[in-house]
Amino acid sequence: MKAARLHRYDPKMEGPEFLKLEDVPEPRITEPDHVIVRIGGAGLCRTDLHIIEGIWRTKVNVELPYILGHENAGWVEEVGPGVTEFKKGDAVIVHPLMTDGTCPACRKGNDMHCENSLFPGINTDGGFAEYLLTKSRSLIKLPQGIHPHEIAPHADAGLTAYHAAKKAARHLEPGDYAVLIGFGGLGHIGFQVLRSLSPARIIVVDRSPLALELAEELGAEHRVKAGEKAVQEVLALTGGRGAEAVLDFVGEGGSIEMGLAMTKNAGSYYVIGYGGTVEVPAIDLIFSEKNIIGNLVGTYTDLMELMTLAGEGKVHLSTTTYPLEEINQAIADLHQGKVKGRAVLIP
Amino acid sequence: MKAARLHRYDPKMEGPEFLKLEDVPEPRITEPDHVIVRIGGAGLCRTDLHIIEGIWRTKVNVELPYILGHENAGWVEEVGPGVTEFKKGDAVIVHPLMTDGTCPACRKGNDMHCENSLFPGINTDGGFAEYLLTKSRSLIKLPQGIHPHEIAPHADAGLTAYHAAKKAARHLEPGDYAVLIGFGGLGHIGFQVLRSLSPARIIVVDRSPLALELAEELGAEHRVKAGEKAVQEVLALTGGRGAEAVLDFVGEGGSIEMGLAMTKNAGSYYVIGYGGTVEVPAIDLIFSEKNIIGNLVGTYTDLMELMTLAGEGKVHLSTTTYPLEEINQAIADLHQGKVKGRAVLIP
Amino acid sequence: MKAARLHRYDPKMEGPEFLKLEDVPEPRITEPDHVIVRIGGAGLCRTDLHIIEGIWRTKVNVELPYILGHENAGWVEEVGPGVTEFKKGDAVIVHPLMTDGTCPACRKGNDMHCENSLFPGINTDGGFAEYLLTKSRSLIKLPQGIHPHEIAPHADAGLTAYHAAKKAARHLEPGDYAVLIGFGGLGHIGFQVLRSLSPARIIVVDRSPLALELAEELGAEHRVKAGEKAVQEVLALTGGRGAEAVLDFVGEGGSIEMGLAMTKNAGSYYVIGYGGTVEVPAIDLIFSEKNIIGNLVGTYTDLMELMTLAGEGKVHLSTTTYPLEEINQAIADLHQGKVKGRAVLIP
Amino acid sequence: MKAARLHRYDPKMEGPEFLKLEDVPEPRITEPDHVIVRIGGAGLCRTDLHIIEGIWRTKVNVELPYILGHENAGWVEEVGPGVTEFKKGDAVIVHPLMTDGTCPACRKGNDMHCENSLFPGINTDGGFAEYLLTKSRSLIKLPQGIHPHEIAPHADAGLTAYHAAKKAARHLEPGDYAVLIGFGGLGHIGFQVLRSLSPARIIVVDRSPLALELAEELGAEHRVKAGEKAVQEVLALTGGRGAEAVLDFVGEGGSIEMGLAMTKNAGSYYVIGYGGTVEVPAIDLIFSEKNIIGNLVGTYTDLMELMTLAGEGKVHLSTTTYPLEEINQAIADLHQGKVKGRAVLIP
Repeated sequence: MKAARLHRYDPKMEGPEFLKLEDVPEPRITEPDHVIVRIGGAGLCRTDLHIIEGIWRTKVNVELPYILGHENAGWVEEVGPGVTEFKKGDAVIVHPLMTDGTCPACRKGNDMHCENSLFPGINTDGGFAEYLLTKSRSLIKLPQGIHPHEIAPHADAGLTAYHAAKKAARHLEPGDYAVLIGFGGLGHIGFQVLRSLSPARIIVVDRSPLALELAEELGAEHRVKAGEKAVQEVLALTGGRGAEAVLDFVGEGGSIEMGLAMTKNAGSYYVIGYGGTVEVPAIDLIFSEKNIIGNLVGTYTDLMELMTLAGEGKVHLSTTTYPLEEINQAIADLHQGKVKGRAVLIP
Repeated sequence: MKAARLHRYDPKMEGPEFLKLEDVPEPRITEPDHVIVRIGGAGLCRTDLHIIEGIWRTKVNVELPYILGHENAGWVEEVGPGVTEFKKGDAVIVHPLMTDGTCPACRKGNDMHCENSLFPGINTDGGFAEYLLTKSRSLIKLPQGIHPHEIAPHADAGLTAYHAAKKAARHLEPGDYAVLIGFGGLGHIGFQVLRSLSPARIIVVDRSPLALELAEELGAEHRVKAGEKAVQEVLALTGGRGAEAVLDFVGEGGSIEMGLAMTKNAGSYYVIGYGGTVEVPAIDLIFSEKNIIGNLVGTYTDLMELMTLAGEGKVHLSTTTYPLEEINQAIADLHQGKVKGRAVLIP
Repeated sequence: MKAARLHRYDPKMEGPEFLKLEDVPEPRITEPDHVIVRIGGAGLCRTDLHIIEGIWRTKVNVELPYILGHENAGWVEEVGPGVTEFKKGDAVIVHPLMTDGTCPACRKGNDMHCENSLFPGINTDGGFAEYLLTKSRSLIKLPQGIHPHEIAPHADAGLTAYHAAKKAARHLEPGDYAVLIGFGGLGHIGFQVLRSLSPARIIVVDRSPLALELAEELGAEHRVKAGEKAVQEVLALTGGRGAEAVLDFVGEGGSIEMGLAMTKNAGSYYVIGYGGTVEVPAIDLIFSEKNIIGNLVGTYTDLMELMTLAGEGKVHLSTTTYPLEEINQAIADLHQGKVKGRAVLIP
Repeated sequence: MKAARLHRYDPKMEGPEFLKLEDVPEPRITEPDHVIVRIGGAGLCRTDLHIIEGIWRTKVNVELPYILGHENAGWVEEVGPGVTEFKKGDAVIVHPLMTDGTCPACRKGNDMHCENSLFPGINTDGGFAEYLLTKSRSLIKLPQGIHPHEIAPHADAGLTAYHAAKKAARHLEPGDYAVLIGFGGLGHIGFQVLRSLSPARIIVVDRSPLALELAEELGAEHRVKAGEKAVQEVLALTGGRGAEAVLDFVGEGGSIEMGLAMTKNAGSYYVIGYGGTVEVPAIDLIFSEKNIIGNLVGTYTDLMELMTLAGEGKVHLSTTTYPLEEINQAIADLHQGKVKGRAVLIP
């Protein structure tokens, strides 16, 4: 089958061939619960750029070449002998992890902390290809009328935003404030999720006037331009107290300091974007009793719930599609900030 | 009355007169809910040293001279016209904050985040004196048979340890691990509280062989000497995963890095001691989904619960008493690490 | 001042004079935290009918005659010497309980379980009068532009609905179902609150076609006519499983059996309306692991949050006003089911 | 193999042959995740009596004859081709349900509400036999040094008590009271669990002086004889307020009314034993805001945690063993109240 594989790291992102389009053998079912999914759409994520740059090289154990692509949706093509819930042709989104379902984390519903998991597109072959191998445990049927390429990025970008927003929503009451830093691919989903799950007043912070315009279109009442006065403006909006929850979808370039400064005493700052470093004197955490909350991708149940919201029309995703053949163009575009919404590859 | 007041900061702790013993006017009741407490014991805390050094100078707004002492217990001496719950002679411990009871934080039971509070001994006159002015809202009657000087340090040291341990206990199930770093004044209380509130397996980490011996005496099954191999030993004890909760009562000198490294993925690291700086790349918080939890002193309800445990004999406090006249000796002793347990001043 | 007092119980509601309009002395401030409120509107509640009928006679300790009216809003007229947060002329809604702020329940934020409370209009003089005595602790300033008579019923009817809906919302995730039985005074508020606080799919059940129409106008997607087939219809809507939460605002005439039958295994049935009896074999509670949740009026914080939602335009209240002089007409109308929305008396 | 099967219901428990000991074919592995367990001990439960009486006839769909026995422990005998976590000879306890691991309930960790489960001994062949068919998902390895017949009753009796006690423990703080009604097979485990998981003050209520003696031996400080004055005594012990949690392991013969009367306002009454009927006017639930909480058997994670406590020596189980051949004697003994502790059959 056709697939886009990473053969060498490219620390400076010089390209032009980041991934190599080539013919590779199709994946095969070797376990009773395996499923082959025919890819309908595979989202391109900033994490793919970081993998190509080699940043993840020491974090995960994987041998080159392999197929990237961890935001996958499509149709069931073939199922293992133990699979009864899915049949050929079912339209599905693929939870990004292949989990065992029996470790303590899975038993408690925290399957993204599964002790025996694989992460296709990160540490094994992913979905920038015609077919993907996964497990039946990872599949969710799509709501009626939704096409795989329309929602593929929910498999990781959406799921991560959902997971963090749901955590925050648990502590947000009427009259509370939530700040979202970064209104891009994850941020615009986080906004819609938070609006669905909580009554909080939401303040969107972004550097880009275009992003703030999009925020306005989606109904964000309070919008603040990132910059020197942003903290001051958020404090003014919140009666001088700051926000009960600050969700930082940027995580670098000053957003961490800004986010912590916008957090109310006894409130929580959620780290979602990355690149920078959290640095704060212990005494300040004690005086303020603030919490710093790490966020991974979400659980299978999180993805079910996100697909429910998507099916109900409460969460819209903005995408731009590319044929799989143009994967290197898509990567270049994303690297240069030219993609509107999330890029989705279609084989 | 006799009182020990701070007249000048002493950044190098040269002494010998850190506080000046002098005669000052007794406090007077000016509000209906005011209460004058005759001090039976006032705990000396490391925070008092930091105040004398001037470290808190920029954090709180207070004019010199003033009376230190924020861990107070004694007997009700006089009550304001609106006070009906207490009468002269009642033995009481004093919650360290004077709160308003009507701000949003107080209404929700988070009174240590009261928006209109005073903190005697920190930003107004405290308890290194014969009498202390506080509010009836701050008082808790002592369990039968407990003398004020025996439990005065619970008003801040114990309360802080209780507050953090209770937060952690909410997430600890049978088979989970909790690491306590630092088995001193706060740590040994935190240990006893955690054992009362949770079924977790507790691992005590300390540099000092004496502290580890005390831990053993109090029944701590797992004890690890702080140092190069401590992280490795904790990982070995926890099946390579780390602990669901790490309570750091030290907060400096490498304990923060050590504590975070001992924390299990999806677990929480509680900052209680201070002095150092939390510094962690955002990507690491994301990969591990760890939480960093700030901790302030506890609520009135926390102190009620701690006194209940103390009254039931579940939490013992180790103290050394000094007459108030020897306050400067006590301070010197604490500074030089010569106090066994918590120092308590008796006027 | 003018006031409507209950002089005798009227078990059969024969009237015509249920309450006697008469001149009584104005209330006077006797405690530092007392406040006199000039009534702008006082809601009439079905509980007032039950009091007149004598149903509450054995439940509360009160001597006749006294002034009814427990849903009060107005303007501050006079404040006690200890009150600093409010001044004459402030527009306020009155939390229905006068609480002490210092009992264990108040300390934890559960002030409606205050151990030393009064309930004006139930066990002491209420608001069917020109002036009401309460405490500053019970007052909340109205959002800009809202007139007391527009929101007086929120003080009890709205607050009760809010309290129950908020409890339910804590357990409701995307894709979950909530059933509301009874779309009257409390139910239509409960619906709007639940929609603000949770992503659940809401099913409204009512006997009355008019109520179901109102539900449709307010945006309720799923509406079921109470009756023989109601349980079957709800099961059909919920994939045969029932609803995670069933809020019963009726509590009599078959609604309890119906509500329990509509509740999913491991779900909760919330008792809000009353009159009937919960009767269920223990074995059925065990097989199904259902919960039966009692609901009282809400806390001060609940009322703050409800007023926030009201101020944000998320919760609308439908009312009909009567001059205080027509109190007996209003009572007769309510008794005969002729009041549209909630009746509010204006002195 | 040898097995004890139910051939006919015996509503009056006349016996003497309740179950028929006979030779039946051994179970066979037909799915990849199947496991055959060689039974080391199978607990006899009051529910077995109820099944024989025919009480469960209409509740579950099962054809006679079949093998009873739902509290099973033993050694792995044979594993299906997909099983990697267990091997022949492993000592295991068997979670009573065979679950699918993929329904919404399993995904959230509530596997005892699995939508596609079997309950061996209840609706398919159980463990009063030499071998039992189950799934690898249902197995937990025993702590070192514990023999299957010593802990088999934990698989259902212990698990049920654990599940309810853990729910209650979440809401119990220092100074709170918990009442346990019934100190028999489940109650004595519930007591030990509650003591491990919570700091509450526990009051044991039982009719039997022997049971109260056992409670004293196990360290129960407060013991009350069930009867006319029991409610009064519990109220006296709790300052007139009642207990925050009442766990009713009896569920009939007046225990329900007694339990509800012992429950504090805003507290919870947990239904665990069955036979009687919960009957309470809605108005009383509203005044008191009490909760009535149904309780099923526990989750796999609950059983893991209980086995952890058992392995740590925190929960002891009192048992009497019978050879499988004497099953009818064991049943007769249990029916006549002659078994000390829990009866365990050994094949």
